[in-house]
Amino acid sequence: MSATPAYELLAAGNLRLHHLGHLGDIAHWDQETHMPPRGAAARGAALAELAALLHRLHTEPALREHIERAEQEPLDDLQRANLREIRREWQIANALPESLVQARSLAASRCEHAWRAQRQANDWQGFAQNFADVLRIARQEADLLSQQQGVSKYDALIDRFEPGMTAAKLDRLFGDLKQWLPALVQRALERQASESVITPVGPFSVSRQAMLCERIARMLGFDFEAGRLDVSTHPFTGGAPEDVRLTTRYREDDFHQSVMATIHETGHGRYEQNRPREWLGQPVSQARSMAIHESQSLAFEMQIGRSYGFASLLAPLLAEAFGPQPAFEVANMHRLATRVRAGLIRVDADDLTYPAHVILRYEIERALIEGEVEIADIPALWDEKMMTLLGLDTRGNFREGPLQDVHWPAGMFGYFPCYTLGAMYAAQWATVVRSAYPVLDERVAIAQSDLNAVFDWLRENIWSQGSRWTTAELAIRASGEALNPAHFRAHLERRYGR
Amino acid sequence: MSATPAYELLAAGNLRLHHLGHLGDIAHWDQETHMPPRGAAARGAALAELAALLHRLHTEPALREHIERAEQEPLDDLQRANLREIRREWQIANALPESLVQARSLAASRCEHAWRAQRQANDWQGFAQNFADVLRIARQEADLLSQQQGVSKYDALIDRFEPGMTAAKLDRLFGDLKQWLPALVQRALERQASESVITPVGPFSVSRQAMLCERIARMLGFDFEAGRLDVSTHPFTGGAPEDVRLTTRYREDDFHQSVMATIHETGHGRYEQNRPREWLGQPVSQARSMAIHESQSLAFEMQIGRSYGFASLLAPLLAEAFGPQPAFEVANMHRLATRVRAGLIRVDADDLTYPAHVILRYEIERALIEGEVEIADIPALWDEKMMTLLGLDTRGNFREGPLQDVHWPAGMFGYFPCYTLGAMYAAQWATVVRSAYPVLDERVAIAQSDLNAVFDWLRENIWSQGSRWTTAELAIRASGEALNPAHFRAHLERRYGR
Repeated sequence: MSATPAYELLAAGNLRLHHLGHLGDIAHWDQETHMPPRGAAARGAALAELAALLHRLHTEPALREHIERAEQEPLDDLQRANLREIRREWQIANALPESLVQARSLAASRCEHAWRAQRQANDWQGFAQNFADVLRIARQEADLLSQQQGVSKYDALIDRFEPGMTAAKLDRLFGDLKQWLPALVQRALERQASESVITPVGPFSVSRQAMLCERIARMLGFDFEAGRLDVSTHPFTGGAPEDVRLTTRYREDDFHQSVMATIHETGHGRYEQNRPREWLGQPVSQARSMAIHESQSLAFEMQIGRSYGFASLLAPLLAEAFGPQPAFEVANMHRLATRVRAGLIRVDADDLTYPAHVILRYEIERALIEGEVEIADIPALWDEKMMTLLGLDTRGNFREGPLQDVHWPAGMFGYFPCYTLGAMYAAQWATVVRSAYPVLDERVAIAQSDLNAVFDWLRENIWSQGSRWTTAELAIRASGEALNPAHFRAHLERRYGR
Repeated sequence: MSATPAYELLAAGNLRLHHLGHLGDIAHWDQETHMPPRGAAARGAALAELAALLHRLHTEPALREHIERAEQEPLDDLQRANLREIRREWQIANALPESLVQARSLAASRCEHAWRAQRQANDWQGFAQNFADVLRIARQEADLLSQQQGVSKYDALIDRFEPGMTAAKLDRLFGDLKQWLPALVQRALERQASESVITPVGPFSVSRQAMLCERIARMLGFDFEAGRLDVSTHPFTGGAPEDVRLTTRYREDDFHQSVMATIHETGHGRYEQNRPREWLGQPVSQARSMAIHESQSLAFEMQIGRSYGFASLLAPLLAEAFGPQPAFEVANMHRLATRVRAGLIRVDADDLTYPAHVILRYEIERALIEGEVEIADIPALWDEKMMTLLGLDTRGNFREGPLQDVHWPAGMFGYFPCYTLGAMYAAQWATVVRSAYPVLDERVAIAQSDLNAVFDWLRENIWSQGSRWTTAELAIRASGEALNPAHFRAHLERRYGR
């Protein structure tokens, strides 16, 4: 038998998975940004083959013994944290048969590809057909994971994105939100009704928007020597930690959308670019969870991007990009960035109405996975909840309703709650940062160096920590307490309640 | 034991290799077109991991028995041709250890990445350091393949690109060329010295060139629903048969380069897009060989692209793209496309001087692989041969000398001869086509329908045949004879000797 420590065998295997995963990550990015339409079937087959292969490597029979043996070996703290994450991934992989993993990848590729045209065409019926496969497989997956872990089906799916999170906890957090949020939205809308805001006058050339967005991402510290910014239907951050691919999307009549999406994705991108380099390829180097990931994108978009200070940095860049306009004056840009609108589209929402979009999706997808409702029930549920939460009528408007997001066609059930959890964590980080640095306040102009101070804090407390700690431990080490939603409420009250 | 026919097991395994290979192909395309500089190390590691994995799958111990068993099974002709190709690939793979395959991939990625900057900087010494690894591994590979196949080292490497081709055959073909080509070049130069040619006046905006190139590729039948055209340092055709990625490169002062590169790559692209669809994933669907591949790119670039007929199609597109100019008149464009220049750069060469570039590289790389010369000897050899063949002094000019091509940094020894073999085959196809259709003649304007007739012939006789036949059989079926270099000579005499 080999004398190689079992831990080292595991680490070498993970590096191999990391390298092979890189190819899937680039192919997935290409699929969303460059792939011609008739390339979809071959790409779907290739990604499904890789998913099956990675699953096979994740469930090699020898791994059980390696993990058990490694747990008896002398390891340092980081190695032990890595081993904890290795066991977690191994456990999840072993709950699922290879056939399901391959079928899941194929169904998601097919549904996602068709969804792009179906969304455009407001074709709910067409979508529902492909989506049936995605949901069927997700329910099987939830079933298998829930049996293995002894939790509810939906909890088993959330756990993939946010370890330890449960529907019971979400019900408490979101139940509380639903108590006070509508009144605050109402108050903000009434107050803002009398505010005068100047709307920027377009058109705004796409090439100038692209240059502006790149400049903003650079100002926010994104390293273009190790990443890119491209265009996709739905903005996302993909690629690999050594080569991070951000995307945004452009409209000639509105630069705000491309700019806010860029700021959001840059938050994700900096997390990825600043994960512990020497541990890349090991699970301990990975981002802690998707709520923590969204806490970075939303720290960038909501805490920084919609602050008065940021408007002061943005205003001169806008004038340079599009020529001077009265609308580009700092206070006006800040008013625009904090304008509350009960809108149909989640990604365009301000931070005050955003939770409503998340709660609606959470309630529907949870019921879908638990088998309480079926696909045919979604439109009526969507309409009802949009009316209750934001007072909007969405009947027949599938395109700006349940067809707007990529998550369901991609089979990412359990992801949506991470946005609002992320917003809560982002507010919690901002509370700590604000107490140390005079930035992110609502009425203070700032300089690039102020931004850098915020990034230094994030790097030290979040990015460089990877998955070393559990989410709760990470939060306590960074901010002195586990998730405390009071900071989010205080932030919204301060920004919108005055 | 399973009752599944061994042939079916082999076919299923090949499909798996095809799917995984797709990811490498897209990642390689991305590396040349989009990857940021600091992504190189991770990409190199990922591609090397995939190379090792594919090699493992290509050399699974069970394959020997499957192949032997399949050879006893009742198969139709195409299956039998497929099995022949499967055995060939299996044999080559088994000559090489996994460590060599992985090291080869890593060394090529590293050398190729560094080469891009070193070429720019004319840095021969820097290049020579990385290149030493590439050459060392290629020599090992040649050694192992030559032992297995009982042929010379260089022959073993050519065989990967052009099965059955040998240095002895090349010596005869190229020796003959060297007899008559210099005098023909001389004659053409003298005749053209008195010709008046109007040079197009730039600048030619890159975005207009890009639109023009896309239009030309479309006119040449490239399917943009299943492919793209992008920019890279060195034009190439990559991607997968279901998603073909062409590249070209632009200079503001000269549209001719981007247009000719596009035409060349479109030839490769159409071959790839028209390989037998129902056999994709099986070796029998692959392009026959690299000489046959280059016979398509050069049929497009040299036979079609530099013909008078094509100039008649191109002239109005140029006027549309850049505004009318006297230079865009048909006869003048044809004179420009057939202008002979003894130049330093292979990819910019006319079809008359092109073989000189190939012969030079062939003689040097053959001596390198056989161990007769070393890397330090290359510059002097290059200078000497450029002087002999084209009368050019290249001393100290590494950038436009041995650093100009990607093939050596990428470890593709044995590829260069395929260009001139391809030019010979292209002339042979053109002879047949010309006898059937009134196109490709030197003084006749043509229509799109004439082009389509040529493409129909190529589709039927070359593209749709994949690797069903050996190269010689394919040539005989298409043109009534195996490779006959007299057609190439006749073509050059007709175009340049009058």
